[in-house]
Amino acid sequence: MPVNLSAPNPSELFPIAGVRIGVTEAGVRKANRKDLTVVLIDEGSSVAGVFTKNRFCAAPVQICRNNLSTGRGIRAMLINTGNANAGTGEDGLARARSTCAALASKLKLSPEDVLPFSTGVIMEPLPSDRIEAGLDAALADANASNWVRAAEGIMTTDTVAKAFGAQVVIGGAVISITGISKGAGMIRPNMATMLGFMATDACVSPLVMQQLARELADGSFNRVTVDGDTSTNDSFVVIATNKAEHAQVDSLESVDGQALKAAMLSVARKLAQAIVRDGEGATKFITIQVEGGKTSDECRQVAYAIAHSPLVKTAFYASDPNLGRILAAVGYAGIDDLDQSGIDLFLDDVHVALHGGRNPAYREEDGQRVMKQSEILVRIGLGRGQAADTVWTCDFSHDYVTINADYRS
Amino acid sequence: MPVNLSAPNPSELFPIAGVRIGVTEAGVRKANRKDLTVVLIDEGSSVAGVFTKNRFCAAPVQICRNNLSTGRGIRAMLINTGNANAGTGEDGLARARSTCAALASKLKLSPEDVLPFSTGVIMEPLPSDRIEAGLDAALADANASNWVRAAEGIMTTDTVAKAFGAQVVIGGAVISITGISKGAGMIRPNMATMLGFMATDACVSPLVMQQLARELADGSFNRVTVDGDTSTNDSFVVIATNKAEHAQVDSLESVDGQALKAAMLSVARKLAQAIVRDGEGATKFITIQVEGGKTSDECRQVAYAIAHSPLVKTAFYASDPNLGRILAAVGYAGIDDLDQSGIDLFLDDVHVALHGGRNPAYREEDGQRVMKQSEILVRIGLGRGQAADTVWTCDFSHDYVTINADYRS
Repeated sequence: MPVNLSAPNPSELFPIAGVRIGVTEAGVRKANRKDLTVVLIDEGSSVAGVFTKNRFCAAPVQICRNNLSTGRGIRAMLINTGNANAGTGEDGLARARSTCAALASKLKLSPEDVLPFSTGVIMEPLPSDRIEAGLDAALADANASNWVRAAEGIMTTDTVAKAFGAQVVIGGAVISITGISKGAGMIRPNMATMLGFMATDACVSPLVMQQLARELADGSFNRVTVDGDTSTNDSFVVIATNKAEHAQVDSLESVDGQALKAAMLSVARKLAQAIVRDGEGATKFITIQVEGGKTSDECRQVAYAIAHSPLVKTAFYASDPNLGRILAAVGYAGIDDLDQSGIDLFLDDVHVALHGGRNPAYREEDGQRVMKQSEILVRIGLGRGQAADTVWTCDFSHDYVTINADYRS
Repeated sequence: MPVNLSAPNPSELFPIAGVRIGVTEAGVRKANRKDLTVVLIDEGSSVAGVFTKNRFCAAPVQICRNNLSTGRGIRAMLINTGNANAGTGEDGLARARSTCAALASKLKLSPEDVLPFSTGVIMEPLPSDRIEAGLDAALADANASNWVRAAEGIMTTDTVAKAFGAQVVIGGAVISITGISKGAGMIRPNMATMLGFMATDACVSPLVMQQLARELADGSFNRVTVDGDTSTNDSFVVIATNKAEHAQVDSLESVDGQALKAAMLSVARKLAQAIVRDGEGATKFITIQVEGGKTSDECRQVAYAIAHSPLVKTAFYASDPNLGRILAAVGYAGIDDLDQSGIDLFLDDVHVALHGGRNPAYREEDGQRVMKQSEILVRIGLGRGQAADTVWTCDFSHDYVTINADYRS
């Protein structure tokens, strides 16, 4: 059961001029399943991406990085579920290139103009023949209003499709932003993969697109964690089709740049948080906010230590205010000169720990009350500076083990 | 159910001349439970310790560090279960000092000659009055043959007491080594705490004791992980009573030093591995051996990434050869210049991945066969150097969640 996450609201999924999407059932791994999505992007668009830091990155990630670096315009994306094309060596690269070439041929493009994405089973050969055989049907389906179908088409074991949008005024023009994501679902022997795609008709200089993609990822997808496992295939791509009627944004620090980034970040955060809300076995959505650090990096480091602690996560699952576990995670987060007597801990409005010890005014029933909520704010004060950072995560339940242990016998 | 771990074998738990142990039921948290242990150490012994790196370390850890640094001889240890005296601020330090002073007074020692250890509930005041009231009974129980009782006396939710010993010839004399440990068990709102205590009658220069303790910990307790949570109270102490009839060991590089260290390391490893075998919910004991690294540090880093991955650990629980999860963990372990095409993966004798891809000769039924074993060797080749390192861990089961979620409603 996802935590406070509903199916996409079509009324906020704005068509983006210059982007058309087609979805089909190609039978990549299972029959009767939307598993192949093509995204067609008009000439003159700006495209940038951010990819997994995993050194064992999948073949499509390697090709995306290469094709984006050529400086040619990206004109299409090809996304399959059912097979991650990871751990597949040279053969995997060849199969991914073959699917890009097949789509490029139909669209009269160069293969380097296509970005491929795969999610699903790993260490098995990509069934490129089935993907190529499905291209005509996907192309025939292509239109600008297919965002919900696209969100469904990239799901693996996600239980809810994830799509959000917004409109904002930039330089006097109403521009639209629409995005989709998929999250941490695994079917054996699959990997959790996060995919996020966002498009806007805003006019953005190619020179700031990479910065925009990086800053959006840093404020959203790089702030969520389900189990700390970084996939081989994680990808986040931003498209600006430059169709709207306003002066091109050539700096993210300008008034227009700031407004555009804020609106896009709001959508990116919803997409990223939806992944946590639909995290495997999640029953609670937890915001971990660390303040009073010397740097935001050390705040994030502490937040991730808490977010990744199985002890903390099982305590949230149990609604058990076992809050020493949080303090212990703060202690081992790796800040060598941390002074425990400066630490404060709040659960929502409840002041649990004061100067590193139990707050004399803290009553366990107050902690218990907050722990029972489906949305919980954990706030840590480090007492050593002015920096802050936030991470979003979920709890750790029996269902997580069930989903990932996947009894086959 | 612990994995291949039996109750202590009294025939290998050698009394150590110069060490006497007394155990009693002090009612620290629960009645009818051995929860207070005193260890009396003859004058002239050498004592050294290694403690948690958690910055949120407990009051007793702070006092141990201080008392060991005075250079006075340590003459007694005082160990309680039921309360960790962590997250307790100045009050916790005062209560721990009070128990040390009470024991010191009965033994006509200085309080600084006593090392305190606590494990159990955190963020609750140490019931120092009950501990002090139990000291007479513990002292009345003191004798040299109490190692099994001591191993039982430091258990929290361990299911099996952990004690091992060995004898070895050093400089013509037969010397004895005996040790006990307790592991990762939690009762709400408790922390996993690892405690390890080893004693030998060997003659060891005080100058090499700290090095000996550090190297023993590095080769044993610092190589195991259950869930990656570093406790506030982890402590490992080594005692050499200098009673045996041989020339003092004043270098660990000498023939005698090497022989002593090897024998003690063998016992320390059994103690540390016993903690994993009795890890919460453990059904399998997994050795992760990483070879072909540039440094042993990077090998250990990769081994820990695998050992801490919830995806890998749930796959072991399910006996599911979902081995891409291991490759993915190798990829995100943090070696920035890792070349995936150099990676090999073996499960026991089964060669699963070759040059970063699936080994063409690998058959899933071979992987499945190994995954069903209760003891599994995961061997990774990084293909970039000559260094190697090893970590021991367990799988991640439904029982882990059950034990740590601890429904109270």
